[in-house]
Amino acid sequence: MANDKLSNPYLLSAGDLIYDDVQLIFSKTKFFLENYKRDVKFDDLKGVTVALAFFENSTRTRLSFELAAKRLSADVFSFATAQSSLKKGESLIDTIRTIEAMTVHMYIIRHMCSGVPRFIQNNTNGIVLNAGDGKHEHPTQALLDTFTLMRYFGKIDGLKVCIVGDILHSRVARSNMSMLKTLGAKVGIYAPGTLLPAGYEKWDVQRFDTIEDAIEWSDVLLMLRLQRERMESGLLPTIREYSKYFGVDLKRFSSKPELVLLHPGPVNYGVELDYTISSFPNVLIETQVMHGVFIRMALLSLLSEFVAV
Amino acid sequence: MANDKLSNPYLLSAGDLIYDDVQLIFSKTKFFLENYKRDVKFDDLKGVTVALAFFENSTRTRLSFELAAKRLSADVFSFATAQSSLKKGESLIDTIRTIEAMTVHMYIIRHMCSGVPRFIQNNTNGIVLNAGDGKHEHPTQALLDTFTLMRYFGKIDGLKVCIVGDILHSRVARSNMSMLKTLGAKVGIYAPGTLLPAGYEKWDVQRFDTIEDAIEWSDVLLMLRLQRERMESGLLPTIREYSKYFGVDLKRFSSKPELVLLHPGPVNYGVELDYTISSFPNVLIETQVMHGVFIRMALLSLLSEFVAV
Amino acid sequence: MANDKLSNPYLLSAGDLIYDDVQLIFSKTKFFLENYKRDVKFDDLKGVTVALAFFENSTRTRLSFELAAKRLSADVFSFATAQSSLKKGESLIDTIRTIEAMTVHMYIIRHMCSGVPRFIQNNTNGIVLNAGDGKHEHPTQALLDTFTLMRYFGKIDGLKVCIVGDILHSRVARSNMSMLKTLGAKVGIYAPGTLLPAGYEKWDVQRFDTIEDAIEWSDVLLMLRLQRERMESGLLPTIREYSKYFGVDLKRFSSKPELVLLHPGPVNYGVELDYTISSFPNVLIETQVMHGVFIRMALLSLLSEFVAV
Repeated sequence: MANDKLSNPYLLSAGDLIYDDVQLIFSKTKFFLENYKRDVKFDDLKGVTVALAFFENSTRTRLSFELAAKRLSADVFSFATAQSSLKKGESLIDTIRTIEAMTVHMYIIRHMCSGVPRFIQNNTNGIVLNAGDGKHEHPTQALLDTFTLMRYFGKIDGLKVCIVGDILHSRVARSNMSMLKTLGAKVGIYAPGTLLPAGYEKWDVQRFDTIEDAIEWSDVLLMLRLQRERMESGLLPTIREYSKYFGVDLKRFSSKPELVLLHPGPVNYGVELDYTISSFPNVLIETQVMHGVFIRMALLSLLSEFVAV
Repeated sequence: MANDKLSNPYLLSAGDLIYDDVQLIFSKTKFFLENYKRDVKFDDLKGVTVALAFFENSTRTRLSFELAAKRLSADVFSFATAQSSLKKGESLIDTIRTIEAMTVHMYIIRHMCSGVPRFIQNNTNGIVLNAGDGKHEHPTQALLDTFTLMRYFGKIDGLKVCIVGDILHSRVARSNMSMLKTLGAKVGIYAPGTLLPAGYEKWDVQRFDTIEDAIEWSDVLLMLRLQRERMESGLLPTIREYSKYFGVDLKRFSSKPELVLLHPGPVNYGVELDYTISSFPNVLIETQVMHGVFIRMALLSLLSEFVAV
Repeated sequence: MANDKLSNPYLLSAGDLIYDDVQLIFSKTKFFLENYKRDVKFDDLKGVTVALAFFENSTRTRLSFELAAKRLSADVFSFATAQSSLKKGESLIDTIRTIEAMTVHMYIIRHMCSGVPRFIQNNTNGIVLNAGDGKHEHPTQALLDTFTLMRYFGKIDGLKVCIVGDILHSRVARSNMSMLKTLGAKVGIYAPGTLLPAGYEKWDVQRFDTIEDAIEWSDVLLMLRLQRERMESGLLPTIREYSKYFGVDLKRFSSKPELVLLHPGPVNYGVELDYTISSFPNVLIETQVMHGVFIRMALLSLLSEFVAV
């Protein structure tokens, strides 16, 4: 590998990472995965203060980052909206400047509005990690998804991955599309017309019209979570109809036993996926979660090299 | 002592502990109680990740477990419902599987539904501690209550303990009844008929009809907290009447000055107990709380021996 | 310096600190400010358990104390109202006695009611720090404000500081008035008549009638935050009028370029202060925040000498 440092001192979108960056992160992730033991304590983030600023509810991503940071010996503090003086009418940027002044080194940001992590990065000397912003990006999810595929298939170059579901609203889809292309995968999409963004034709991805066609073409289906709010907003007729055309059940899964399924979770069982197949060895949902902690340890460790001592 | 390891790699109910287990826990508790100092840091849980999953509000039990885990150098994280994707409709078991995949070793669970800790234990490789489930069990409360009696009386075998109040809805009562019998105490009960479960006659405990009789018989009264919701549900006429027949005030307490009082807290002063007697040396409420941290340190330490390295 | 220990084992109001105490705190603060580095970990609070009991929302003060305690290696736990059994009707004092029984050494208290920290100090053996109580006191804010002035001017004795805004409701004003006098500063006030307490004449401070007079006299303006609730309660006609007579904009600021501005934050930009001047080098708002962490490290370290080992 040519470089031993990331190209950018932040991670706002999957596009911030070039091929060599991803290889570096994967190699570090593999190291942590293989060397993590109960009685080993890593010191990579000793003395580094990490702010978890989750302005949107989250279980798995928040826990994953929190565990990753603590396992590297960081000082972690949470900064939840409910307890904050955002309620007193303080603007986001003043809040960040205040935190900044307290010598915080890294910010892990989740926000319901697209672009907030970049806005914060533009106004701070700290290091910003995007943990999901609106419908924009969720780059660590893309990293853990592709790492999971790399470990399973040995390589990603040439792999056929079809993203299934609500692509219009999905930051997971957007980050994965970018990351998969960086790594040389072929990307397909299969989605209701109402849940595809305008101009998707320019993406240079293959669009499928039936789940059968998608399955036939794919090595991997990356199933997206269906937000039930989409019903209310009139974008979908019923959950049952969505499930009929866009869900994977045992019958469909049996038509191609070697097919690999990813899902960012939490799964709506019975909608995107049947519960019966959730424990199949090539349904990698729990492996994704497990890899997530190590991907985030690797990222935090590599980004901490940009923290001034 | 014959064994130096607990019989089970979990603690779901008081009945999971045989006599030797309790002795082992008490001996370890005594060790921590005697050796805890400000400048001593125990390493028993170094590298162990402990999830505090409190799905029901709690001050003392949550703090007690959190302090216990931190004083043993564990990595502790809280998992509160409000911030979790349980809101997104994720089922409990998927949440637990997700946490599990992040290499969490121990779960401390409080839940408003009876049986949830056992359900989680059945679906995880981690170690589950029940911190109170519905009207079912609260085994660490029973451990700290009996440890407090052991330290006060020197022995529990033959001790006469009467449980007073809302036995029907009390997990504290249920766990204590089991634990006290394991340790050879004689158990009495004194409760309004509406707050006794059907079939209590089979329990082989002595039932009293007046507080005077209960006091005369007992070495110890274990007072339960009255849930004010019981009024609304019509199980009790008024708080004043409950207090008149089931509360302990100075006059009643003076009739037997050596009587020991326990209460799991928080006390409704003026209902179960008069404030005037709360600071008497044989009213052991604060001692119970103090012992609680050490009991939990002992338990966490002994259970951590089942965590794979 | 004569003494090397604080006069009192707590900090409830600015008046608890004599001149020598403040010098001791400033000297320790300077030490931490100069010696804090990413890879240095201070052990001053190792084994000390610190409870953050914030019964009122707060971002900056809570974070500042949390970071300060963690950078000194304390065991920190938060005790938020929402999660507490205060909801079960437990009284504050019983809650504190419970926490006390768990061997907590220091309490950092914010409460909407004046006097709560003192009430807690009277009922505990622990060490209480007032992090803001009602309209009463906020002594660490006064320490960080005066420390900021000391660093900027080299000395405080003889400095002219005018406090501007809602003095009636401001704990920041009350603590600063006391602390500034202890350190020999001359104090002025400029406020709407409805936002001055009865009997302010006895304070022996100079009152100004126009912002121009206040600026002309002052070396420093300490601007207070305007609580928008004051409009609703009829104490002020409109925000616009308040801003016109009591705010500082570029034109007013330009009339005395060497004037120093302090503000406890969060600022209502456009009301007390124009955004355009917020980044001027003698507008010290971010410096105040930065010093806040080190002031609190110094205080925690000095107070921890009273914790029994």
